[in-house]
Amino acid sequence: MTTTELGLDEIYALAKSALSAAGADEANADAVATTVTNAERDGAHSHGLFRIPGYVATLKSGKVNGAADPKPDHVTPVILRCDGQNGHAPLALSRCMGPLAAAAKQYGIAALALYRSHHFAALWPETEALAYEGLVGMTCVSYMPMVAPTGGKSALFGTNPISFSWPRPGGDPVVFDMATSAMAKGEVEIAARDGREVPLGTGLDASGELTTDPAEIAKGVLLPFGGYKGSALALMVELLAGPLVGETFSYETAERDNKDGGPPQSGQFVLAFSPDILSGRDWATQAEKFYAKIDGMGGVRLPGSRRHKNRTEPGPRRINTALVEKIRALAAE
Amino acid sequence: MTTTELGLDEIYALAKSALSAAGADEANADAVATTVTNAERDGAHSHGLFRIPGYVATLKSGKVNGAADPKPDHVTPVILRCDGQNGHAPLALSRCMGPLAAAAKQYGIAALALYRSHHFAALWPETEALAYEGLVGMTCVSYMPMVAPTGGKSALFGTNPISFSWPRPGGDPVVFDMATSAMAKGEVEIAARDGREVPLGTGLDASGELTTDPAEIAKGVLLPFGGYKGSALALMVELLAGPLVGETFSYETAERDNKDGGPPQSGQFVLAFSPDILSGRDWATQAEKFYAKIDGMGGVRLPGSRRHKNRTEPGPRRINTALVEKIRALAAE
Repeated sequence: MTTTELGLDEIYALAKSALSAAGADEANADAVATTVTNAERDGAHSHGLFRIPGYVATLKSGKVNGAADPKPDHVTPVILRCDGQNGHAPLALSRCMGPLAAAAKQYGIAALALYRSHHFAALWPETEALAYEGLVGMTCVSYMPMVAPTGGKSALFGTNPISFSWPRPGGDPVVFDMATSAMAKGEVEIAARDGREVPLGTGLDASGELTTDPAEIAKGVLLPFGGYKGSALALMVELLAGPLVGETFSYETAERDNKDGGPPQSGQFVLAFSPDILSGRDWATQAEKFYAKIDGMGGVRLPGSRRHKNRTEPGPRRINTALVEKIRALAAE
Repeated sequence: MTTTELGLDEIYALAKSALSAAGADEANADAVATTVTNAERDGAHSHGLFRIPGYVATLKSGKVNGAADPKPDHVTPVILRCDGQNGHAPLALSRCMGPLAAAAKQYGIAALALYRSHHFAALWPETEALAYEGLVGMTCVSYMPMVAPTGGKSALFGTNPISFSWPRPGGDPVVFDMATSAMAKGEVEIAARDGREVPLGTGLDASGELTTDPAEIAKGVLLPFGGYKGSALALMVELLAGPLVGETFSYETAERDNKDGGPPQSGQFVLAFSPDILSGRDWATQAEKFYAKIDGMGGVRLPGSRRHKNRTEPGPRRINTALVEKIRALAAE
């Protein structure tokens, strides 16, 4: 793969220019470009510039409103609802996270129900933002059906990721962000391209049988990670990011999507807790001793640590040259 | 195995008499006996009378206070903290669930931090109680170390279960209650007794190697379900049921326990959300269509349905006769 070196400011400018050319206004283009740049900064290429053509497609098809002006609405002192106004999620989230954090700091817990929004990014930006405010964060989104419930043979669940963060005062949080599917769809496609087998349990072929051949899984369905337990978690995400926030299940999401290749309209649920209020003791020092114990085990890594290490790398990032050229062409349209 | 038929009222009376004989007061003996009886009612023998000798041991050793009088304390309108006063968890929980539900119904979300409590039961009683109030429930507890983090070879996490419930107005909730370990310790011991292999990934032998021999795992450690993703969830439970609620990590729990065989002092975190407030639409009808879709898939069961079916069985339950005699002897002491 040929790569091109781009500084973070160049990544941001490239992303923003393509979004602006497709009709996103200043606030929306800035929010999405920032999210994409932060993913590249952290080494998460699959959520970086790679997503720009999909974001652009939704603006061009008219599915997404590039001038969305979402604002949080306090339904109660601790419940925010936000109508995403059919925009991409980053602007709505950037406007909601501050009020959500403020409510959690005052009352100990708060929740955000985001609906009519188009999420196409990782989830750690939301949970990390809360952790840097000294709060515990949790969030989940559903997507379009590509995962069969355990015992089933057809797709019903999205890859339905869950993210969780725990603050470390003065440091980077402990944070995980994981699909509830055994493997991401993109990883299966890459394994098929490279001719590598995948573990049994990753997915089913088109006839509903277990297989280790990723090309066959690509024609069939993925499975949840960890069998029936992962399936129960995927079901939970369907409920939390769907009806709980006034939005759709994955199968309903797919039914109304225009299939332009970009993110569908869906919901997101975000929770914030204050350990200061809930704990009543020095939770931070206690947790640091626990992490030291984990570090001392050897071979065990705290979730999020690799990404935070990538983040500190100075200098440009290496981006697939074909992708850079494709986005430059979009920006020039 | 020889079994004895006991009606639910007889199960309750037997449990209560053993607890009373060991020094539990009326309120505490009633709360624990009710929890144990409900487990037998639902066919969950491992959380039924089987637990009574352990409960009794903690009363006899003085680790648990049979006269605990716990009351919820409103730290904010949506945060309850409850000092379990070193009692068994059921009395504290029965006193906290009403105020927790009331707060969630008024404000949309509420949380309970229970500390200095001894939990030795399933978690679905807490989440189901919330669901029957029309709320979504989540809870988790940690325990003593018996699970190695992914990449590690020694025990750090408890089996760290998570329970989630979703209300179905007019019906039984969707509810799961699952350990974040690949298998329960008791199941591994039963497999060893019966000479059955367990799946690779269930645990490690004493030298830290993967094995399918349950007798070797019994000398080693369990692993989280689903690899590193389950390990991340087990870590999350350590944080939520530990420092978040002002209590201990599993390793700290073990360090201060007197090893009398009964439940150690630990923490529990319970969350309640109101879908009426969060959703802003007819979430219940929407969810029923989703369940109908799942039922139509064939082979997929909604979590909790088997237990709810057991619950409707009239008549006595079959209990291990040796266990009944053991508890009768405890009651006669």
